[in-house]
Amino acid sequence: MALQKISLVEQARTELLRRIVTGLLPAGTRLTEESLCAEFAISRTPVRDALSRLETDGLIERLPTRGYQVCLLDLAAIDELLVCRMKIELMILRENYAGLAIAGLRELRAELAAADPDAADALETARTVDDRLHRLVGDAADNRFLREFHARLLCRRLPYRDFRNSPGALSPAELRRERLALLDALLSGDSERACRALAEHLEAGRRDVLAAMRQIPQ
Amino acid sequence: MALQKISLVEQARTELLRRIVTGLLPAGTRLTEESLCAEFAISRTPVRDALSRLETDGLIERLPTRGYQVCLLDLAAIDELLVCRMKIELMILRENYAGLAIAGLRELRAELAAADPDAADALETARTVDDRLHRLVGDAADNRFLREFHARLLCRRLPYRDFRNSPGALSPAELRRERLALLDALLSGDSERACRALAEHLEAGRRDVLAAMRQIPQ
Repeated sequence: MALQKISLVEQARTELLRRIVTGLLPAGTRLTEESLCAEFAISRTPVRDALSRLETDGLIERLPTRGYQVCLLDLAAIDELLVCRMKIELMILRENYAGLAIAGLRELRAELAAADPDAADALETARTVDDRLHRLVGDAADNRFLREFHARLLCRRLPYRDFRNSPGALSPAELRRERLALLDALLSGDSERACRALAEHLEAGRRDVLAAMRQIPQ
Repeated sequence: MALQKISLVEQARTELLRRIVTGLLPAGTRLTEESLCAEFAISRTPVRDALSRLETDGLIERLPTRGYQVCLLDLAAIDELLVCRMKIELMILRENYAGLAIAGLRELRAELAAADPDAADALETARTVDDRLHRLVGDAADNRFLREFHARLLCRRLPYRDFRNSPGALSPAELRRERLALLDALLSGDSERACRALAEHLEAGRRDVLAAMRQIPQ
């Protein structure tokens, strides 16, 4: 019984996360327990638990009335989020370079090198590689609270990160080249070079996301 | 109606937090919705919301069966918690020394200087001063995500921090002297000196808490 309930919560959470990340539920969209219960055909408790976890991850926020909305950060807040993530990720890499999962990074590099930048799923590949790369850096932290915070920051940026890959930003071929260079720096054995490359990558991402978001009517 | 409910949640949360902080509910204590509903004579929803907020702050954890328990971190985890808090607080002070609330720190110093270290409430005063001091440092952060994370770390350490003030550790007079010196360093206008003093204070606190906790049967 308990297992069944946890699994419903997880299914509901994953489905809502998928919709937020893919832009099906853009920032500002309202969510209510009632409509989700009806749509998923499950009872209120698992829906409420799933919403509560998404709230903890900072992806949705409770409204003063009832219900929730997909988080709608203003530009200043998104900038602070990206800056905070940059500080934490660089702190982890600087202090835990020796703890990086080299095998995982090598595998990622090989996959990316083999991928066709002109394929239809090139953007999806770039996104997956980026996710795994940053998670590998965060997982190198020798402090579970920093690791958790980093994972949460990665999660919180999800509704915004794809602006970097939007038309007008870098092409899939450019994104691929940039990430191969970053992986080479991480794998170089030179922690200074690795930190510099990661800082540049995160700074470029921040600049592109903010530039793309400035073009959206607030 | 909505106000009334929020206020019940807040009352329940504050009361549970008070019990955890004062040691009335030591780490490992079980909590159930049923018994809290009965004791506070309120319905399930506000009790559940209060528990969910304490869980978000990392002070209680959900049990795989039902109910919750006051967080029971092992020594390694407490050490990582204190190290993480130290890193984040020092990062904030280093980058935002100019943003410190000088008036608040001066007021705190005056209060502490005027307090009698032999008074019956000397420990309570030391605790309050410490709380306000670290919150003033955290509030200086110019990044809301770092500020939130710092506040959460301060909260998560609450069930452990009083070990520093336990018998055998520093006397109230010594605690008072140490904190006056820290406040002087923070107020000196010399950010290097302020960071050094804060690092020493946090490191001493970490060492004392861990030493005291090692004497408790795990």
